[in-house]
Amino acid sequence: MADEVTAALLIIGNEILSGRTQDVNLNYVALGLNQAGVRLKEVRVVADDEAAIIDAVRALSGAYDYVFTTGGIGPTHDDITAECIAKAFNVPLRRDQRAVDQLLKQMRPEDLNEARLRMANIPEGAELIYNPVSHAPGFRIKNVYVMAGVPRIMQAMFDGIKQTLKGGAKVVSASVVIHAPEGSIASQLAAIQTAAPDTEIGSYPFARQGRFGAIIVTRGTDPERVRAVSAQVVSMAKEAGAEVEDEGLQAP
Amino acid sequence: MADEVTAALLIIGNEILSGRTQDVNLNYVALGLNQAGVRLKEVRVVADDEAAIIDAVRALSGAYDYVFTTGGIGPTHDDITAECIAKAFNVPLRRDQRAVDQLLKQMRPEDLNEARLRMANIPEGAELIYNPVSHAPGFRIKNVYVMAGVPRIMQAMFDGIKQTLKGGAKVVSASVVIHAPEGSIASQLAAIQTAAPDTEIGSYPFARQGRFGAIIVTRGTDPERVRAVSAQVVSMAKEAGAEVEDEGLQAP
Repeated sequence: MADEVTAALLIIGNEILSGRTQDVNLNYVALGLNQAGVRLKEVRVVADDEAAIIDAVRALSGAYDYVFTTGGIGPTHDDITAECIAKAFNVPLRRDQRAVDQLLKQMRPEDLNEARLRMANIPEGAELIYNPVSHAPGFRIKNVYVMAGVPRIMQAMFDGIKQTLKGGAKVVSASVVIHAPEGSIASQLAAIQTAAPDTEIGSYPFARQGRFGAIIVTRGTDPERVRAVSAQVVSMAKEAGAEVEDEGLQAP
Repeated sequence: MADEVTAALLIIGNEILSGRTQDVNLNYVALGLNQAGVRLKEVRVVADDEAAIIDAVRALSGAYDYVFTTGGIGPTHDDITAECIAKAFNVPLRRDQRAVDQLLKQMRPEDLNEARLRMANIPEGAELIYNPVSHAPGFRIKNVYVMAGVPRIMQAMFDGIKQTLKGGAKVVSASVVIHAPEGSIASQLAAIQTAAPDTEIGSYPFARQGRFGAIIVTRGTDPERVRAVSAQVVSMAKEAGAEVEDEGLQAP
C-alpha cells in the first residue's frame, strides 16, 4: 500500500517460548500501531540469548521503519536486553545518570543496589522511555524502542511512545461474517480481490457448533473504497445463498 | 543444554499482525513441544506475503531441528502457504490425490470446486498430516510441518504430530513465588545461577495490588538438580526476609 510506515516487534523471553506465559503484548502493540498508522509486518520471539537477540535486532532494525522490543530490562541475571542492543549497534553500554534519577523516584538510595543499578545501564546515545509504573526506564536507540515485558509496564511505555510515531495513511477495515464454508465463495472472493488491488481482502474461517463460516475482512487506506469493496463481498455472499452479517466499517 | 532438540514456529497471517486475532497457537505448541522433549527456540509471525514466508521458512528450516507453521492452507486467495513452501524448497506444487481423497470425506464431489481443490495442492515429496476436524490435510516436507491456523484444527493436527517427534531430554521446572521486588534478591540469584550452569534460572516479575514480586523458575533436564537449585532459591529468599511460596517441581 502507498505511504506505508512499517514496524516489527521483538519479544524477548524464555517464558513465552516455554509456554509458561501466554504473550499478550503482541496484540496490544498490533492494535496500537494500527491506530498510529503504522503497519506491523513481522514479530519474532527469541530466548534470553545474546546471539539470538543481537541477530534479530540487526535484521529487524534494517528491514523496518520502527522496531519495538519487550522484555529483559529488569535487574536480574537473565535481563540482558540492554547490553545486547548496545552490542547490536556497536556502542558502549553506560551507567546513565538520568536513569539513576528515575530509579530514585521509586526507591530509597540505600535500596539502589548493584543489581538494580543494572537497570540504569543504557546504550550510549539512547533516549529514555518513561516508565510511570515502576520508574525503571526503557530507551530508544536509532529506530529501536526497548520496553519492559510486564504487560502493565509495557502498555504504559507504549502508550507514551505511540503519540510520537510518524504514521502513514491509516488503515481501516470492514468485516462481513458469512455463514457458509469459505470454500463455497472462494473463487468469487478471489475475483473481487483481483479487481480491487488497492484493498486487501482476508478470509478467516471459523467453526461454531459444527457449522463452518468465515469472516471476510477488507482493509485499505481509503474508507470509501473499503466500504465499496466490502459491499461487493456482501452482495456476492448473498447471491451464493449464504446468511450474511455485515459488520461495516471499523477503525482500524 | 546437552542432548537438545530444537524447534521454531512460524505463524502466517495478517490477522495476527493487524491485532484482529489474538494468537493462541504459540502457547499450545510451546507446551506440547515441552512435553515431547523439544525446545522451542524461536517464533516468527509474518504476513500472507510470498517473500516473507519463503525467507522465514528457509531461515528457520536451516537453523532448527523442527519447524512448525500455522495458517494459510485454506481455499481462499490469501492462502498461499503451500505454494510458498514448495518455492522455499524448489520443488513443484502438485495436485495430490491422497489429499483429494481426504477432502471427499468431508464434502460431496459436486462441492469440490476449484477453490477447494487448491487445498489438495501439496509440494512434491511431502507427507500428509491428518486433519480429523475438517479433513483438509496439512503436510510435512523435510523438517517443516505445515498446519492449519484455526486453533481447533491446528491442535488436532499437532497432537497427532507430537507423538512422532524425536525429543531430547525432557525439561522439568520448579517455581518459587517470592513476595519481594526482584531487585532485592537479584545479586544472590545471579550467584546461584553462576554456580549451577546445568540449570537455567528465570525471574519473572509481577505486580499485584501495588506490591512487586517475582516468580523464579529453575529449568533443567535433571529433576534432582532442578529440585536442589530451586531449594537454594527458597533458602536465599527466606534469608533475604521475603515471603516465599515454594510451588515445587513441575513437568515440564
